[in-house]
Amino acid sequence: MKKLINAPDAVVDEALDGMAAAHPGLIKVVRNPNYVIRADAPVRGKVAVISGGGSGHEPMHGGFVGRGMLDAACPGAVFTSPTPDQMLEATKAVDGGAGVLHIVKNYTGDVMNFEMAADLAKAEGIDVESVVINDDVAVKDSTWTAGRRGVATTVLAEKICGAAAEAGRKLADVTALCRKVNDNGRTMGMALTACTVPHAGKPSFTLAEDEMEIGIGIHGEPGRQRVKIEPADRIVEMLMTPVIEDLPFKAGDDVLLFVNGMGGTPLVELYVLYRKAHEIAEKHGLRVVRNLVGSYITSLEMAGTSITLLKMDADMVSLWDAPVVTPALRWGA
Amino acid sequence: MKKLINAPDAVVDEALDGMAAAHPGLIKVVRNPNYVIRADAPVRGKVAVISGGGSGHEPMHGGFVGRGMLDAACPGAVFTSPTPDQMLEATKAVDGGAGVLHIVKNYTGDVMNFEMAADLAKAEGIDVESVVINDDVAVKDSTWTAGRRGVATTVLAEKICGAAAEAGRKLADVTALCRKVNDNGRTMGMALTACTVPHAGKPSFTLAEDEMEIGIGIHGEPGRQRVKIEPADRIVEMLMTPVIEDLPFKAGDDVLLFVNGMGGTPLVELYVLYRKAHEIAEKHGLRVVRNLVGSYITSLEMAGTSITLLKMDADMVSLWDAPVVTPALRWGA
Repeated sequence: MKKLINAPDAVVDEALDGMAAAHPGLIKVVRNPNYVIRADAPVRGKVAVISGGGSGHEPMHGGFVGRGMLDAACPGAVFTSPTPDQMLEATKAVDGGAGVLHIVKNYTGDVMNFEMAADLAKAEGIDVESVVINDDVAVKDSTWTAGRRGVATTVLAEKICGAAAEAGRKLADVTALCRKVNDNGRTMGMALTACTVPHAGKPSFTLAEDEMEIGIGIHGEPGRQRVKIEPADRIVEMLMTPVIEDLPFKAGDDVLLFVNGMGGTPLVELYVLYRKAHEIAEKHGLRVVRNLVGSYITSLEMAGTSITLLKMDADMVSLWDAPVVTPALRWGA
Repeated sequence: MKKLINAPDAVVDEALDGMAAAHPGLIKVVRNPNYVIRADAPVRGKVAVISGGGSGHEPMHGGFVGRGMLDAACPGAVFTSPTPDQMLEATKAVDGGAGVLHIVKNYTGDVMNFEMAADLAKAEGIDVESVVINDDVAVKDSTWTAGRRGVATTVLAEKICGAAAEAGRKLADVTALCRKVNDNGRTMGMALTACTVPHAGKPSFTLAEDEMEIGIGIHGEPGRQRVKIEPADRIVEMLMTPVIEDLPFKAGDDVLLFVNGMGGTPLVELYVLYRKAHEIAEKHGLRVVRNLVGSYITSLEMAGTSITLLKMDADMVSLWDAPVVTPALRWGA
C-alpha cells in the first residue's frame, strides 16, 4: 500500500488537523466527537445545512464548510458512516434558531445514524429536516444501500441549499429545494482502478489491466458491468446515455454538467471527458448553462470519473452563482 | 496503460476543447499554433503575463489564464516544450501596448524556445521581458535542465505577477517582482509512483512497491535518492529540511506554504502532509501567513507531493490576496 500517511488509524484525524491549520478563517475542527464547522457558527437566525459521511471522498464534505455552503460536516472513518453523536453535536453547534437541514447520502448506515441524530436533536427542541440524496442511476440496490446510491448530486445540493440558507430562506423552503435538486439530478460513474482503504491495506477489488467497471459506486461497490476499456468518448456515452434517459432530460432543458474525478484521475483527462459530455448534452438539445470540472467527490486514489446532469431553473442558477467561500469551492467573494 | 483518453495524439487538443467548452467566459483557445488566452485579451495598457510548457502538469498553465493571473498559456505536447511560434503568436495576441512578461520554467527546451519567441516579438516591436523560474532545491542539473529545475514556485509567481500586472504596474516592475518571487521560493518534491506519458504507453520509470523517489522532477526526472517508503511525517521532514536550509528561511520570516499534489494523490493525504509541514514551519519560527493545498502543478497521474516555501513581504501578500478569476484559482471576485 503506497500512501502518504502515518498510520491507517491516524489518517482522518491528521487530515482534519491539516484542514484546521490551513483554513483558520473559514473553518474550525471540533473533536470528540469530530466535526468541521464554519468559523462563525452558529449564525443567528439562519437555517443551518449539515452533511457528513465516511471519509475518503475529499473534499466532500469538510471542504464544503464555509459561507454559502455547509455549516458543518461530520467525517466518519474512511468509507464508514459518522456516528449519531457526531451528527447530534454538530446539529446543536450550528443551530442558530432557524432549524437545521441534514443532507444525507443514501447509504444504510448514514441514513440510520442521521435519523437517530435528528430524533435526538428534535427531542432537544431543534427543528431538523432531512433529505436523502439518491442520484446514482447505475444500480437499484447495492452494497450498503437500499435503493439508489447518493453520489455527486450531493455536492450540487450542498452548494445550492447552502446559498438558499445564506439568503435567509426558511427551513421548509431549503428542504423543499434540496428535494428538488435531488429529483432533478442524475449521476453515473466508472472506474479504471480500485482504491485501497488504509485499514484494509489492499485494493477493495481488482480490475485487469484491460478492464473498467461501469456504474461503480464511490466505495468501489459493483456497478452495471465490467468490460474492456474503451476510448474516452465511448465511456462518456456509456455514462451520459443512462443519465439522460433516466430523468429523462429533454431538449430545451437548462442543465449543469458536472464531470467529477474519482481522486486519481488527472485534470487533463477530465477535460477530455468534459469535451465529449458537453457535445452529447448539446446534441440532445440540452443547454449547458453551468458546469463543474474537477475532483470534488472522490474515492481515495481511484482512477475514474462520474458525470452528473442537474436540470436547473432560474432560481437554482442564481443560487449556484451566489458567493461561496469554502476550502474547496470559492467564488463571488 | 489505463487512461481516460481517446488517443495519445489527441489528448492535448481534446483537453483544450474541453477547457474552451467549460470556461467560455474566462478563456478562449486559439489553434495552430495552440494557446489559451484571456477572453478579453488584449487588455489595453496592461502588462501581459504569459507562461507555457509541456502539457501533463494541469491545471498549470492553462488553468491559470484569466483576470488577475495569466493573459495566455502555451501548452506543448505532454512533457514537451511549446514551440517558438506558439509563444510568439500568444505574445502578439496579448500585447496591450505595455509589454509582455514571459515566465519560463527552467528546462532547456523551454528556455531556448521562449528566448527565440522573445527575440522575434522584440523584432516586431513588442517589449518583452523573461524570468526563468528555478526553485527546485533537489538537484543542480537534471535531465533536460542545466541548473535547478523550475517547479511549483511558478504557480505562485504567476498569481503574484498577474495581480501586479492587473494593478497597472509597469513591465520593469512586474519583471523585478517575478525575479523576487523566484529568489524567495524553494521547492522539493517526491513520488510514490511513476506516471505514464500517453505516447510512451508505459511508466517512465519504476519504483518498487516499498520504494519512493525523493527530489523527483515533474517529468519523473531522478531526484536525490530512491529509498524505502517512510511515514508521511518523515517524508515531510525530508522535503522541508532542504527547502528551509536552502534560502535559508529564518525565524520571523513570513511565508506562504504550498503543499502540492502530483496528480494521483488524494486530497486527504495532502492535508495529512500539510499538518506536518505547517508544524515544522512554525517550529522554525516561520509565520505561515498564507497557504495553498491542492494539485496545481502535476505530473499526470503520478502519486506524490511537492512542498514549496515562499518568503513573502507585505506587497506580495497583498498581491496574493488580490482577486483572481481563472478556471483553477478563483477568489475575491
